[in-house]
Parts: sequence; structure tokens; C-alpha cells
Amino acid sequence: MHSLSSQVARPLCSPSSHSRYFRFLSLSLPIFHSSKSHPKIFTISPKAPLLTVRNCTSISAKPSSELRNKRSNSDSDEKLRALRELFSKPSVGIDAYIIPSQDAHQSEFIAECYMRRAYISGFTGSAGTAVVTKDKAALWTDGRYFLQAEKQLSSSWILMRAGSLGVPTTIEWLNDVLAPGGRVGIDPFLFSSDAAEELKQGIAKKNHELVFLYDKNLVDEVWNKSRPKPPNKPIRVHDLKYAGVDVASKLLSLRSELADSGSSAIVISMLDEIAWLLNLRGSDVPHSPVMYAYLIVETDKAKLFIDTSKVSAEVMDHLKNAGIELRPYDSILSEVEGLAAQGANVWLDISSVNAAVVKTFNSACERYYQSLESKPKRKTKMYDDSNGWSGGPTGIYRVSPISLAKAVKNDSELEGMRSCHLRDAAALVQFWVWMEEQIKKNVKLTEVEVADKLLEFRSAQPGFLDTSFDTISGSGANGAIIHYRAEPDSCSVVDDKKLFLLDSGGQYVDGTTDITRTVHFGEPASRQKECFTRVLQGHIALDQAVFPENTPGFVLDAFARSSLWKIGLDYRHGTGHGVGAALNVHEGPQGISFRFGNMTPLQKGMIVSNEPGYYEDHAFGIRIENLLVVKEVETPNRFGGVGYLGFEKLTFVPIQAKLIDLSLLSAAEFDWLNDYHSRVWEKVSPLVDGCAREWLWNNTRPLVKL
Amino acid sequence: MHSLSSQVARPLCSPSSHSRYFRFLSLSLPIFHSSKSHPKIFTISPKAPLLTVRNCTSISAKPSSELRNKRSNSDSDEKLRALRELFSKPSVGIDAYIIPSQDAHQSEFIAECYMRRAYISGFTGSAGTAVVTKDKAALWTDGRYFLQAEKQLSSSWILMRAGSLGVPTTIEWLNDVLAPGGRVGIDPFLFSSDAAEELKQGIAKKNHELVFLYDKNLVDEVWNKSRPKPPNKPIRVHDLKYAGVDVASKLLSLRSELADSGSSAIVISMLDEIAWLLNLRGSDVPHSPVMYAYLIVETDKAKLFIDTSKVSAEVMDHLKNAGIELRPYDSILSEVEGLAAQGANVWLDISSVNAAVVKTFNSACERYYQSLESKPKRKTKMYDDSNGWSGGPTGIYRVSPISLAKAVKNDSELEGMRSCHLRDAAALVQFWVWMEEQIKKNVKLTEVEVADKLLEFRSAQPGFLDTSFDTISGSGANGAIIHYRAEPDSCSVVDDKKLFLLDSGGQYVDGTTDITRTVHFGEPASRQKECFTRVLQGHIALDQAVFPENTPGFVLDAFARSSLWKIGLDYRHGTGHGVGAALNVHEGPQGISFRFGNMTPLQKGMIVSNEPGYYEDHAFGIRIENLLVVKEVETPNRFGGVGYLGFEKLTFVPIQAKLIDLSLLSAAEFDWLNDYHSRVWEKVSPLVDGCAREWLWNNTRPLVKL
Repeated sequence: MHSLSSQVARPLCSPSSHSRYFRFLSLSLPIFHSSKSHPKIFTISPKAPLLTVRNCTSISAKPSSELRNKRSNSDSDEKLRALRELFSKPSVGIDAYIIPSQDAHQSEFIAECYMRRAYISGFTGSAGTAVVTKDKAALWTDGRYFLQAEKQLSSSWILMRAGSLGVPTTIEWLNDVLAPGGRVGIDPFLFSSDAAEELKQGIAKKNHELVFLYDKNLVDEVWNKSRPKPPNKPIRVHDLKYAGVDVASKLLSLRSELADSGSSAIVISMLDEIAWLLNLRGSDVPHSPVMYAYLIVETDKAKLFIDTSKVSAEVMDHLKNAGIELRPYDSILSEVEGLAAQGANVWLDISSVNAAVVKTFNSACERYYQSLESKPKRKTKMYDDSNGWSGGPTGIYRVSPISLAKAVKNDSELEGMRSCHLRDAAALVQFWVWMEEQIKKNVKLTEVEVADKLLEFRSAQPGFLDTSFDTISGSGANGAIIHYRAEPDSCSVVDDKKLFLLDSGGQYVDGTTDITRTVHFGEPASRQKECFTRVLQGHIALDQAVFPENTPGFVLDAFARSSLWKIGLDYRHGTGHGVGAALNVHEGPQGISFRFGNMTPLQKGMIVSNEPGYYEDHAFGIRIENLLVVKEVETPNRFGGVGYLGFEKLTFVPIQAKLIDLSLLSAAEFDWLNDYHSRVWEKVSPLVDGCAREWLWNNTRPLVKL
Repeated sequence: MHSLSSQVARPLCSPSSHSRYFRFLSLSLPIFHSSKSHPKIFTISPKAPLLTVRNCTSISAKPSSELRNKRSNSDSDEKLRALRELFSKPSVGIDAYIIPSQDAHQSEFIAECYMRRAYISGFTGSAGTAVVTKDKAALWTDGRYFLQAEKQLSSSWILMRAGSLGVPTTIEWLNDVLAPGGRVGIDPFLFSSDAAEELKQGIAKKNHELVFLYDKNLVDEVWNKSRPKPPNKPIRVHDLKYAGVDVASKLLSLRSELADSGSSAIVISMLDEIAWLLNLRGSDVPHSPVMYAYLIVETDKAKLFIDTSKVSAEVMDHLKNAGIELRPYDSILSEVEGLAAQGANVWLDISSVNAAVVKTFNSACERYYQSLESKPKRKTKMYDDSNGWSGGPTGIYRVSPISLAKAVKNDSELEGMRSCHLRDAAALVQFWVWMEEQIKKNVKLTEVEVADKLLEFRSAQPGFLDTSFDTISGSGANGAIIHYRAEPDSCSVVDDKKLFLLDSGGQYVDGTTDITRTVHFGEPASRQKECFTRVLQGHIALDQAVFPENTPGFVLDAFARSSLWKIGLDYRHGTGHGVGAALNVHEGPQGISFRFGNMTPLQKGMIVSNEPGYYEDHAFGIRIENLLVVKEVETPNRFGGVGYLGFEKLTFVPIQAKLIDLSLLSAAEFDWLNDYHSRVWEKVSPLVDGCAREWLWNNTRPLVKL
């Protein structure tokens, strides 16, 4: 309910948020560097990814109806003054300080105490970077937030409209405003190692030095006593019947991968990877059932770095059984130093592990080798030509092995996903019935009220825990804003004159949902029907695709656009993102996008969203989203000796027939739609009764080709 | 009619030949390096590109009916002995010599005098690399040629089955068999600069040195008097009505690109680029209307390096008018040295320009700077921070600007292409009528006889010059061999029991054609019909695609495979290659392939083939190929402010209805087929009469959906 909670947008698979799914590319690059888009190749979406989306809200699933006041100049100036005062402290000594949106784990949703950029700048949008020098303060955000930032920033701040012509990147700006040889401070926990390295190299061009300030986040010092406490909600064990594989088995596989790579340890910092590996769930942040922690797995032991007040006796037992020791969250760096001192070969995913951890390890390695040199008589064979390192610590920089393991769901995870999707569908059916009744009764409902009501229906379902992201409830023109977030004070009314786009999802004890439907409560225009139908044709084409093993997702992306392309339409976001099982609603490594960088093949058991759309600026937005599981397809042939893959649907909610221009559909598309609706009835009707059941019956009847 | 002419295969857009179209990747990498395929991503085609295809035949368009005898051991041994004798000459001094298939211009089809690898090894296949050491001789070729190489190589040779398990690359083998510190000789004209560099680095691992032998090709010395003379067929001017743009205008554009890149000169070595830029055509090699030459274009002058005996008075005038001077072909290196001495900034496409030219330029640059250093009092400002080089020669390594300019056809070129395609279609119609008559009369025709007859019909068309590649005439199981080349002594009979695949093309004065049709003269099996229909559906899907500007070809590739994928089938070659206008039948930079490396966007005016296929080993092959021009499509919308593109068909020859399983076709596919056939009738019927016209009528009647 805190005021910070209501100004965040949902990162669906849009250009802006795709860097999230492709987190193996440097996350912060778009902020620090000029957009290196290839206009000849990528102008399908001229809007290059600008900012990594980092969302957060309060822990409650309820959208806040509180309003935020514009920060006063004096409040903002006082904070800046206090921050700048710290610049000249002997242990600091910097000329500029960068405050990103991130927490220490590259989380999509972060706890309030880590919202330092929002605190210092007053700008509460999900994406943005603040840079404060001794006499200037600038905030970068992207097109979604220009208006909001204008309102929220005091006159002490320069708003940098990232991606607009002539607007410098943070690096360019720092190189411009600082006298050469400046010292630029960062909290190294808040930058991935990759991102920090890029920043370092970028500012080195003007001989600026990047200074890691490990000991204290300067914004936290200013925030001081009013800063919220770090979250410490209790952790729970994720039941084996949902997890499918016990922790011991997961650790065994991981250790085998470590051995194969020549590693003796791995530092894991992504919160969903830790939750998945340990079959634990938390509630430290909204929408994602994770807890703040680091994990180090070694050949013979494993240590979880966590605030122990979150750990119940049951969880303690669970961890003990898996051979996992507890350590204080704050002791991660000293443990990493210890690994180097022991000569460990440590697997580090430098695209996700923060710069504090990586740099600490590397420095400790250097000290290790220096101490060897100072003992000249000791004869250590450090490098063996045939076997690689035979002694001494080393960092092995590779993509985290957990990412792929987590993405490929086992049968129990899939069972939970299937089951929660039906309960979620039941809630949605009840919701749509209620909506139609309100419209009929001419009740004026705002987008926020509608989203709140949907949450009510979801909350009544067994096993419901939270929304899986902030509901996108967009009526009319608001539907065309891909990251729209309705605000209680300014949002539109949902009525029978406009298209209504509803993108929402739930976290259940057994799974995670994400569904978009677009409906019209009155008479849709023929333009709306044509666009809706073409989006639907794209949705069907992807749903029906069969493809050989080892096909990266982007190969399928054009199937979802083809029907729109025929009339010169397109959409500026990817078509599909990975989804966790009772975990993050957005996960890698797979994706289905027009960006060709992600070569991860789709694999049996992976979950992807199928969400083509079309957005007509200032008019309406359309998106149709189901979740799909990659499955093996029994083809009569297996050319090339490989298996062929296709999709199983997880989402079973009617698609509004009124919006379909039947004359555009092929016979096969007709069949798809009728088959889908007959399965929706079959699967969801046992879970609803009364008018919901009647509504479901009416909305799943076969359509007849004219 | 030389015996060397009959053992070559046609490089259509198969994995093996794709390196040809992607020549900006190092051409020779697959030979020198272990295949670095990414099995997780690329196993759509598990067969990695092994060898660059270099085809050649005699100059006559007639397939040879002469048979080659297996080389005798003594003949082969004598050549090897003579070659090795040269190793120890004082000006040579090498331990091994590499003999590739290439000429000095990375040509697809090469003149006989440059077929050194075939001469020295006796193996006449189009793709292969010979490596001779003081006591060993080895030849690498790929799966298409294993049998042929076994037959043709004497026992002095080791056959290296490239791509087979455990078979080393040439680099691995050299590093294995040579004592460390060996000297490996090459003719630097026969390696692109890129390829030579990779080779150099590869063998450096065992401290071997790569030795450039500029003065004499060692195989030529052995070949000596029996070596054919370099071709010197007369050059002709390519009429402006076909070329569309005069040489002066083309040079103006090129010089403007040179200026933009900071270059003062460019060395062009690709023969089709020279022919295109100068509006000249030659006949030095089969199938490609080009002449051996180099071209250097400077800001204020241009020099063509060519055997002047090819240059008629008319051509001389043409060149003079465009301000182009003539130089002897062999003087290219001294001219390049001169450029360095003058301080020129020379644009070099190191993926195509040979190592002799690039190394000569670089060495001359070094000498230039050394001579400056020896004059210490001279104060030369060599580098200006704001403007780059302000003096002194430098090499600017970029992809040739001619490649893209040539690929985007102007209206006259397109007009010529449209026109010659109709005459080509008339020849094909006459041919098919004749074929069906022969089958009816039970005349036994071999695949070679059939191809010869097709050539007869084409030769009767106005403006016909040559086939554009060796006809692939494959009956039954031979159709499944993607690079099949029928041999008079061993080829199959074409009859009414088997599918017959015919892939052929013509060079006309106004354009170049490339068409594949697959037919059955009797009763096709239902399996064949299903496969044919799915290939056709892929062909239609690509033909009908509409896509935004700046889309690379590979985005469309999946459209052509989708229908096959649904039943677990696929094909192991790309779907489309670029085609020259009265030039090479294969050209870059665009392509439509499942390989994702080629990011060149399809552009209005580019020509691509649309040739999905399906090949059932030891049974039958299917391919349906039309040429397409990329055109702007008038879409009712232009989302993103970009244009939308689609295709115009160039090829108008009936598709055999008998092979189509009508029950599989959608209504839209039906419409496509009927529309296509109605346009075939409309466009081609005026060019044929008698039974050809009757056949065309019968074969273009609308099909009726059952």
C-alpha cells in the first residue's frame, strides 16, 4: 500500500523488457551506451530497447489506490545535498554517483528498501537510472515514463528522454559533464559484472575511474532511518509433489555439471534459480515467490546466505537434509574470498552475478598468486598443458546452468501448471460474467476497479497466492500502451464503446499463469475485427507450429506476424517469453522474438507465452495470450533423425467470437477455434456453476463458417 | 569437351554451397578447421558445410559424353615426384604445398587452366583440397564425392572424407604430419586474404610458417606444356538497354561510396562485379558470362587488368568513354604496390580479394612507413584525432560495395529478366511436350540425353548463350542427390515409373534463368503426392509472403518448411539464393536460408530463388523452383512507417497437377495455383504454337476443389 507501489508497469515481452529475458546480454547496456540498433535489420521495431524494466510494488497484491504527491523541491534538494556531502568523505571521494533501479540479484520485482533510485529522485517508474554529480542530477527513463517523470521530478533534476534524438547515454553524459580523470562511484552490488565492465570501459575514454563503494550504499545513508527494513517474510518448502525433483537430485545434477566444466564451486545470485534449486519459496517481493539470498554450491557442500529469521524449523530441516548450511546474507563476500584462498575454480555467470561478488573473487585470486610469488622457493606447477589448471583459483565465466535446467519443466511441474491454469480459467470466467453484468447494468467501472475485482475472483481459488505481475487493464486507447498501468486517479472507464485489453496472471501454490484477452462489450468496428482476427491468425499459426528439435524460438516468430504483415501491420514486442513453474512469470533462456540474438533452442518441457498483438496508437490495443508447453509431436516421419516439437496449450479461456471476422478465417483456423473452445468447455466447466457455467457454455459453442 | 568437364556438380543453394553466397564468411574455413557447427542450433541440417563448391566444365554448354579413365599410378606418382622436386628449390624451400580448387577470383565456375587440384590429384570433382608433403599426399572432399574420389585417386593419395568422424581438417593433418617449424607453401592468388590468415594462424600452433609463393604456381610448373592456355574469348559490351545504367553513372556511385568510407581506391576481383560495373560480358568460363580481370577504381581514374587480346575495338571505345585504362592482367601486384607508394587508402574486401593482392599492398604500406622513419627530419602528421588518417596509405577492409549494388536490379535489368524467363518457359514447354511424347512412344532416354535435348530447345530461343549451370537431371533415386550430375556411362533412364527432377537454367543476352520442376510421367505414389504437395505449400507460402522492409531472408525460410515440418520432413539446403541479371546464377549478398548468419535485408529489386524441396534417400527427390523479384507491396497500412515487401514471380512454367494431393490444399493455395497457371497461359502461350500450345492449355486449366 505504500505510495511507491502504484507507478510500475508490467514488463511483458516488449522490446524494452526483452533484455530481461536475454539477460545473458548485458542488462544495462542500453542505458550506458548509445543504442547500437542495426537500422537495416531491426527496424521491424524502430524502438530499440532502452531500459531494463525493473518492476516492484508493495507486497500486497492489491493495487494501491493511494495517490502520490509530487515531491517538493526542498525535499528533493535536501536529499541531493545530503548525497553530495557524502561524495567528499575520505572513504568515498567521488565526483559522481550512479543509482540504478536494480537490486543485487537482477530481480524483475524488487523490495521497497532497494528502491533507491525512486527514493533519491522521486521518480517511481519501474525503469530508470539516476546520475548525480557535484552540481547536476539527471534521470534517464524511456518513452513509457516521460510524462510521469516530468510530474515527479523536481526542478533540480534533468529528465533524459532515453532513445530520443540527441539525448546522450549516461556514459556520454558523464564523459561530457565531468572534468577528465573524474571518479564515478557505484554500489557494485547493483550492477552485474558485465554491466560494470561496460561502464568502466565507457568512462575510461575520458580517463574517468569507476569506483566500487562496497561498504555502504550512499542513498541508504541519506535514507537512513526512514528506509524500510529489508523484507523478512517466512520461507516455505515448495512441496515435492509440485517440484517433482528433490533438492538432493538437483544438487547431484548441478555438481555433475560443475565437474564437467572443471569448476569446484558456483555462486548463484538469481533469486528464482535459488528458489528452484532448493525447492523453497518466499514472499520478499511482490509477484515472484522468492526470497533474498545467495547460494554457493561446492563439490561437497552448499551454503545459503540468507537472513535466518526467515527460516522456520521445517525449512531448516529441509535444508539440513539436503546438506545445505546457513550463512548470514551479508557474509557472501567474505565467503567468496575464502573460495579464492582455497584455490577453488568458481563458475560465475557474469551477466547476472553482481560486480561486488565477481570483483571480490578476482581480487582475492590476485592476492593468492601474489602470495605465491612472494614465496619463490615453493615450486607450484600452476598450469598443466594437457589438463588446464592444476592448481590455484580461477573464475569460470559461463551462463548459469540452473537457467536451462529450470526452464525445462518436469512432469510434476507441468501437472501443477495445468491444474492452476484451470482454476485460473474458472476465476476468469466468473470475472467475465460479472463484467458483462456490470456493463449491462450500466455500472461505471474504472480499469483499476475491474483489475481489483479480477483479483477478488482469483483470490477465491484454492492455492492462490498473488498476482504474477501488475494487471494491465486497458480500455480503448489505453490498450495501445503496451506497458499500461491504470492509476486510480486518472484511469479510464471500461464500457461498451471500446475494446478492453486485460493482461493478468496469478501465482498459485502449484504454478504461475499469464493470460491476455481482448474483448468488446458492445459493437466492435470492422477495423477492430479485422485487426483482432489477424492477431488471432498469428496466435493460431504459432500454436499449431511443428518444428524440428534444436530450433531457436525466433524462427517461429514470423508465423505469428505473417497475417498482420499482409496488410502492413505489425507489433513492437516479442511473441513469447519463458514462464516459471510457481516462479517468475518471466524467465529465460528461451524466447520467441524478432530479435535474432537468442539462439536457445526450444526444448520439450519449456513453457512459452504466445502473445501476438496489434496496437493502434490513441485508439485501441489487441493482444491474445495463452501459455504453451513445448511437447514432442508424433510425426509420421522423423527426417534427419531428430524429433519434431510442437505445443500443448495450458490456458483455457474463451476467445471472444464477436471480435472475429469469420470471412478471414481458413477452414483450418475455424477448426482450431472450435476445437479450442470445445476443450475449454470440457476442462473448465467442471470448475464453475450457475451463470458462470452458462456463460462458458455460450462462449464455447462451435462457430459455423458462412 | 575435355574430360575434366564431366565430373562437376551444380551448387544450388545447399549447405555445401551456401558458403558461396555467404562469401563474407571465410570461404575456406570449413576445409581448414574442424566443423564448428552448433549441434543444438543447427542440426536442422546436421551436415555442416564442408567444402566450397567450385564448379567448372568446358566452355561448350554441351554436357560431355566422353569418359574419363582412372589415372594410372605411374602418371600420378610422376606428377607428385615432379612437384616434390620443386619443394627444395632455393626460391621455394617448403615442406608441404596446398592446392585448392579455387581460381584467383573466388569464381564458382573456373577455366580449365586453373583446375590445378584436378590435374595434380586426378580427382575432378568440383570441391576438394589437395595437400602434398615430402612423403604424403592427401585429398579432402565431401560426401558427394567420396565414391568418385575413390575411383579417381591413385594409391599414392590418401582420401580424406571431410566431415566424417575422426577425419582431421587440413590444418589438423598438417600439424600432425609435419615436424614442428615446417614451411607450408601456397599460391597466394588462390586463397582469399581471410582464408590465408586463418590457415596461417591454424598452422602457427605447431610453429609452421605459411609461405606465399608468388612467382609461380608449382602445379603449373609440373603441368608445363600440356597446361591449357588461359581463356581469351572476346569480350562484348552488355547493351545499355539490358544494363539500364551506364558505366559512368555506376562509377560515380561507386566513387561516392569510396569517398564516404574515406577510401581513395578499391581493388575489385570478383569477376561478376567487374562485368556488372563495366557493362561488359565475357565467356572465359562456362555458365557465367564473365572474363578474367581485376579492376582498380580510384577517385579520378580506373584501370582494368586484362589480357588485351580479348578487347575488341568496340569494347576499347566503350572503356575509353568511361575513362578506363587497360593494363596487363599480370601487372595487378605492381599496381597495388604503386597505390601504397602513393599513400592511397584502399578499400579491400578481404573475404574475396586474394591474399597475394592484400599482402602485397600491406607489405608496400610497411615499406612506405619504414622509409618515412628513415627520414627523421621530415615532420609528417600521420594521424589526426578528429579526421582519422590524414596521410599515408592504409587498407580499409569492408565488404565490397558492388555486391549490394549489383544485387538490387534496376528496371531495365528486371525487364530483361522478365523477358528471357518467358522465352525460357517456351523452351521448357516445348521440351516437356517432347518428353511426354518420347515416354508415350516408350523411347528409352537417359538423364543425359534428356538434358541435352533441353539444351537444344533452349538454344533455339533468341538471345540464348549458355546454360547457367550444369543441368541436374535426376530420375528416381538420383533426384534425391541434391548435387546430382548425370554421367553418360552410368546415368539412369527417365521413364514413367519414377519421379523426375529437372533443375536447369539459361544464360540469355538479357538475363539469367534457374528453374526446377519435378514431374511423374506415370502414376505417382500417394507418398510422392503428399511430399510434393507439402513442398508446393512451402513454395506458395514463401511466394505469398509479405514482410516489412529490413527483414533478412532467413526470417522467411520457415514459411517454406512449415508444411513439411508438420509431418516430420525437412530439406537440407537453403530455400533461396540471389541470381544475377545476365550474370552469375548464384550471387549474394541476400539469401533465404535456415542459417541465421546472413543478416542482409531483402530489398526491392533483389532476385531470389524460391526452391523448397524434399529428398527421400534412395527413392526420389522433389524440388519446385521459381525465381522471384522482391517488390513493394501496396498494403492498406504501413505500420512503423516502413514499406512492406513481397515477391513478383519471374518464372512461368506449369506445375504438374498430377502430383498434387488436392485434399491437402487450402482454398487460398488453390487460388494461388489457379492464378499462377492462368498467368502462365497468358504470358507464355503467345510464344508457342502447335502441340506446345495445346500442352500449355491443358496444363494451365484451373483445378477444382473436390
